[in-house]
Amino acid sequence: MKTKPRIPRGFRDFPPDIMILRKYVINKIENVFIKYGFDPIETPAIELWEVLSGKYGGEAEKLIWKFQDTYSGEWYGLRYDLTVPLARFVALVQLPRPFKRYHIGRVWRHERPQKGRYREFWQADADIVGSPYPEADAEVISLTIDAFLELGFKNFILKLNDRRLLSGIFEEELKLAKYGEKKMLEIFRAIDKLDKIGIEGVENELRKIGLKDTEITKIREIIAIHGETEEILSQLLEKFGRNEKVKIAIDHIMQILDNIPKDLLKFIQFDLSLVRGLDYYTGPCWEIVIPDVKIGSLSGGGRYDDLIGIYTGEKIPATGTSLGVERIIDAGLILEIFKLNRKTYTRVFIVTIDKKYRKYANEIARIFRMHGIPTQIDLMRRTWRKQVEYAKKKRIKVIAFIGEKESKTRTITIHIPDENKHFDQISIEKAIEIIKEI
Amino acid sequence: MKTKPRIPRGFRDFPPDIMILRKYVINKIENVFIKYGFDPIETPAIELWEVLSGKYGGEAEKLIWKFQDTYSGEWYGLRYDLTVPLARFVALVQLPRPFKRYHIGRVWRHERPQKGRYREFWQADADIVGSPYPEADAEVISLTIDAFLELGFKNFILKLNDRRLLSGIFEEELKLAKYGEKKMLEIFRAIDKLDKIGIEGVENELRKIGLKDTEITKIREIIAIHGETEEILSQLLEKFGRNEKVKIAIDHIMQILDNIPKDLLKFIQFDLSLVRGLDYYTGPCWEIVIPDVKIGSLSGGGRYDDLIGIYTGEKIPATGTSLGVERIIDAGLILEIFKLNRKTYTRVFIVTIDKKYRKYANEIARIFRMHGIPTQIDLMRRTWRKQVEYAKKKRIKVIAFIGEKESKTRTITIHIPDENKHFDQISIEKAIEIIKEI
Repeated sequence: MKTKPRIPRGFRDFPPDIMILRKYVINKIENVFIKYGFDPIETPAIELWEVLSGKYGGEAEKLIWKFQDTYSGEWYGLRYDLTVPLARFVALVQLPRPFKRYHIGRVWRHERPQKGRYREFWQADADIVGSPYPEADAEVISLTIDAFLELGFKNFILKLNDRRLLSGIFEEELKLAKYGEKKMLEIFRAIDKLDKIGIEGVENELRKIGLKDTEITKIREIIAIHGETEEILSQLLEKFGRNEKVKIAIDHIMQILDNIPKDLLKFIQFDLSLVRGLDYYTGPCWEIVIPDVKIGSLSGGGRYDDLIGIYTGEKIPATGTSLGVERIIDAGLILEIFKLNRKTYTRVFIVTIDKKYRKYANEIARIFRMHGIPTQIDLMRRTWRKQVEYAKKKRIKVIAFIGEKESKTRTITIHIPDENKHFDQISIEKAIEIIKEI
Repeated sequence: MKTKPRIPRGFRDFPPDIMILRKYVINKIENVFIKYGFDPIETPAIELWEVLSGKYGGEAEKLIWKFQDTYSGEWYGLRYDLTVPLARFVALVQLPRPFKRYHIGRVWRHERPQKGRYREFWQADADIVGSPYPEADAEVISLTIDAFLELGFKNFILKLNDRRLLSGIFEEELKLAKYGEKKMLEIFRAIDKLDKIGIEGVENELRKIGLKDTEITKIREIIAIHGETEEILSQLLEKFGRNEKVKIAIDHIMQILDNIPKDLLKFIQFDLSLVRGLDYYTGPCWEIVIPDVKIGSLSGGGRYDDLIGIYTGEKIPATGTSLGVERIIDAGLILEIFKLNRKTYTRVFIVTIDKKYRKYANEIARIFRMHGIPTQIDLMRRTWRKQVEYAKKKRIKVIAFIGEKESKTRTITIHIPDENKHFDQISIEKAIEIIKEI
């Protein structure tokens, strides 16, 4: 009975070389999260359907991986992001506020499989629960920029906007308030597709949801406004400052900028066309893009002051940022910041010249390992030539030899091909020293 | 529209204090895996149903979390362990052999929810693909023992057996060969329940699958044999050595023991009643138990030489070990090896005495963070007393104060409550030094 080895479409295996890079990237991100005072949590992969539904908005909700439990008949969903699970978590677990948590883990989207679209991918999120203040937004924005710098990225932009600013301007310019909150979310979702479908595409979407041509033209003009952040903001304040939402939003943005370290400010670009696609955002929102790499946003976030209240009944403000692990890796590889050149963590392969030296070779392997040196030894009863071949194929840096002489003198012979170095019959202590220095 | 915050039964959230302990434990295990020359892989959470089914055996298969995709109509399963996904992976991805991989991740079991039974839990596996030799088994067994030592466990036992040994003895004593391989697996599954249901329970199970009372008595006698490993093995060899399976198994076990470092040997106890419950095991198998803690096996593993061949069509020998992260943590907490006393990674909380010093406080936070010191700063616009209260509630080690004097002199005042230490208006460099020393 043979089984065909297949995985579901849109899913991937990660072999060691990719995992070593992934772990490097995730580790860097995690260290930045910790430096900023965030602590880890973990939540289940599966949430009840009722917990997930109605939180993301129309099209996003369709991408939730939904299934019925064959045993209980209950409806479940695989988590779509790490934000809704956090909101649900905060409602269940009492912890001091601000609650600053990070969470790095996989999420699922029921996308139509296509290049660059995965159905399972990893997000690295940092969120602050409990603070309504711009200081909190400034912190997660700073952390986002810092993480990209730490990873070695240089030419990236953090696009910043505030949904309330756009709402306020639309109210003033288009009298859109009459349509209500729901229509506003539809408009946001249409604008969010700008990068994907272009301005004509957005116009079509707006037409579909029932906007008039004059309104569409206005929206087109508004989201096209570009320039220096402070300049635009003061112009908008002058023109629409009578609108409460506009006033609040501009004040909030100014305070955010005021709390971001100077050296990070240069990465921030105000962008009126940025809205983010998910319904739960209520205020400032942002995205990281790399103009040189055309793979969409590598990170995104924003404030969601009303989401947690859906579970608690009491309004609990929150803000957070999410880094897309896969896109960061893809971008880093394209830009050659990252390399896929490490096939193993192993530092030493011990070549046993003949099986009669096995016992001594085992001893040495044990000593190396106890000194924290990742060590391999032959497990295939191969000739020494084949052992060397394997070590080279795996690009193991140090090849150690144990033969008659070494066994008799309790020494080891070491070869470092990359550095063209060779040490004949040296003591084990000396060998450890040399290996640790590489 | 309020949503009731719930999670599916048998699932858990991990708040920061638990996560900090979990990450400590996982990190220790991972370091041992790496030292032994294993490299990481990752596979999807979801596998096709056809890939999972028929690999584990009757009752285990019923615990696979199976669901139908509402979109494609295909049947999927959440991975039940990390071994079958490895076998499927090896069939898809060509890598040099031996392929030594570790994999730490969650698996799902559709258990009836009850105390100590989780439906989602973490396994940490290390496997060697490609080697049929006892050296490979010895390596994963050594690594298993080393991991428990590294975690601080002392009084644990690695029970060791070989399924072929039991098969051979049954063939000789009971003429069970006539029942065939399938019946043998049923007998193994019954014996595997010994710890859970006791010897009478096992006898009932054996009766249910159609064994005669005389056969059951024989099995009872055989699995009750205890004593010194070498002694038992030589007795069995003498008595049943004419049986090919017995001869091969005893030779294999002796060679395993021969390749295990002396200081680890004392943790190994030969146990004829140990068989492991999963169908895919073909030879030596083992389990870690802690007699002082009644929570079943904390780790288990064995050789599965026929599993990968189901996917490749070609026999590829493999052996591996699996550590149960939850049970290890539960046992460590019971034995007080682990403590749940760390609520945060944060080292410093910067108390801003008045909001007018915020800018300076921001600067200091930035400097601390750039020096790798996990730092928090007020995000709630609280009074300084409330800030101190929060820092103490989170058990943050260092409380730093920034007020008028500090701001003017560009210094900082530091308080370390646990050590009853206080440093008034010291330089930032000095503060960093002190904090790093703690």
